[in-house]
Amino acid sequence: MTEVTPERVRAAYAALGSGDRERILEYYAEDLRWLVPGNHPLAGWYESLDAFLELMGQTHKLTGGTFRMDLEAVLVGEDCSADVCRNTAARAGAPEGSDSPYERMDYQVFHFMRWQDGRIVEGRDGLFGDTATAFSQFWAHVGPDGIRRDR
Amino acid sequence: MTEVTPERVRAAYAALGSGDRERILEYYAEDLRWLVPGNHPLAGWYESLDAFLELMGQTHKLTGGTFRMDLEAVLVGEDCSADVCRNTAARAGAPEGSDSPYERMDYQVFHFMRWQDGRIVEGRDGLFGDTATAFSQFWAHVGPDGIRRDR
Amino acid sequence: MTEVTPERVRAAYAALGSGDRERILEYYAEDLRWLVPGNHPLAGWYESLDAFLELMGQTHKLTGGTFRMDLEAVLVGEDCSADVCRNTAARAGAPEGSDSPYERMDYQVFHFMRWQDGRIVEGRDGLFGDTATAFSQFWAHVGPDGIRRDR
Amino acid sequence: MTEVTPERVRAAYAALGSGDRERILEYYAEDLRWLVPGNHPLAGWYESLDAFLELMGQTHKLTGGTFRMDLEAVLVGEDCSADVCRNTAARAGAPEGSDSPYERMDYQVFHFMRWQDGRIVEGRDGLFGDTATAFSQFWAHVGPDGIRRDR
Repeated sequence: MTEVTPERVRAAYAALGSGDRERILEYYAEDLRWLVPGNHPLAGWYESLDAFLELMGQTHKLTGGTFRMDLEAVLVGEDCSADVCRNTAARAGAPEGSDSPYERMDYQVFHFMRWQDGRIVEGRDGLFGDTATAFSQFWAHVGPDGIRRDR
Repeated sequence: MTEVTPERVRAAYAALGSGDRERILEYYAEDLRWLVPGNHPLAGWYESLDAFLELMGQTHKLTGGTFRMDLEAVLVGEDCSADVCRNTAARAGAPEGSDSPYERMDYQVFHFMRWQDGRIVEGRDGLFGDTATAFSQFWAHVGPDGIRRDR
Repeated sequence: MTEVTPERVRAAYAALGSGDRERILEYYAEDLRWLVPGNHPLAGWYESLDAFLELMGQTHKLTGGTFRMDLEAVLVGEDCSADVCRNTAARAGAPEGSDSPYERMDYQVFHFMRWQDGRIVEGRDGLFGDTATAFSQFWAHVGPDGIRRDR
Repeated sequence: MTEVTPERVRAAYAALGSGDRERILEYYAEDLRWLVPGNHPLAGWYESLDAFLELMGQTHKLTGGTFRMDLEAVLVGEDCSADVCRNTAARAGAPEGSDSPYERMDYQVFHFMRWQDGRIVEGRDGLFGDTATAFSQFWAHVGPDGIRRDR
């Protein structure tokens, strides 16, 4: 049995960031399940590593490559880890400097992950304060003023 | 100038229900704009009659043909009309008898419409009480328990 | 029977604005019920004219007297009226010029009212687009950054 | 310096449950800050241990003593801890067996806490999936059908 350590959590994020599927598979199970919070278009359970990676691709595309997660705290427990990231992003096409919640993200996100045999098998995100509302607006099909935008 | 009358409002709904584009065009402008409330996948401005009719098709499809609007009150003003409908629907594939807000709609919706030269040029929906929350859950990509469903 | 007319709707608003209870009673029933949308602290049914007037007092107090409703459209139907107001307000104590949804309101609100024997017996508000979300933030006990504020 | 350990996190919860202020002070700082998620009446920052304990009293009162937090996972990091609790509660006065989100809570909540000199100085809650919506309804001043209830 592989113990969950902060180093392993950090390595999992680094692997994910690399985009290298072989390396990702050292930390994430093929049958990974991941729950995105809210009831906006990206919300809900992603039911495989491929679905999760496609989600990552979507967040990249929808933010014109600006989406970032900076690890601020890493915690471990029995067969589980948690972390707090500061997520920053701007929607693709948003006016420079917009601070509308529909166009700009800059807040902390919490992740809670279950590990099995050294790999993450389940993850769930959550938000603090009232940023769950802002998060739903950021990923919405509508921008400020209700104009629909490409998903 | 054609005055807005309750009869004309009712006739507009009947035309819309017929699906006959020529008949619909007697009451709705080609450059109709329509605003669906919330920040769920169907929310936002639809910027032409065609976009609006495609939306109608979506609501039909997502509810397996169960979507109904029953006119309960019709009001008219200067170059505008309003009405209150009781909307009922079940999401396609929902278990029989489900009363989850993600799967069952049964509440009143109001519409406010601007008319010009005898035709509707702008419409906006809204909801009463806390049903705006339920409305967002009904049209969400997620069902109860967060399972993602086809749009 | 007294018919509902646009003039009577406008007179009801003028009476309400006067704060003169006798005059208000010419247009609003003692057992008026009024539904404020959302699930924020002011939301829900107000179950008498007194409860409704107390609500009006609250909105006045919470906005430092800045709360305004400007009638933009009046509509009438059988025993009912509807109207669209542009509501503007700033929360008491908000920084000058703040455009945070927690501190600044500037959008249209829809009202639907049932009349009986010449007086309003039931009213319900609703909002367009995604302003129901903003409306809940404006009346919340929390401001931007989650700091709690007096109700 | 006192290290944060799972045992210490569990002991903090046990102290909180005891209601014994001296014992609570072994784990929580006098100037504790705590953030409750959402924009409902209980949401926002509580800016002292006393304010936090008053909040605990409120949750007890609003749920007729049914509010429970069962620790399901405990995690520790550098000067911080996290945990996942299953929270269950029924609103005081709710009909037996109600499963309305306005009346019944049964879902997981996570907590993220900062520790300093062996005591918790900051805590924030969050929710998974779409339960942030349910959480706001549970603590709302309105019940199902919009009837206002005592805070």
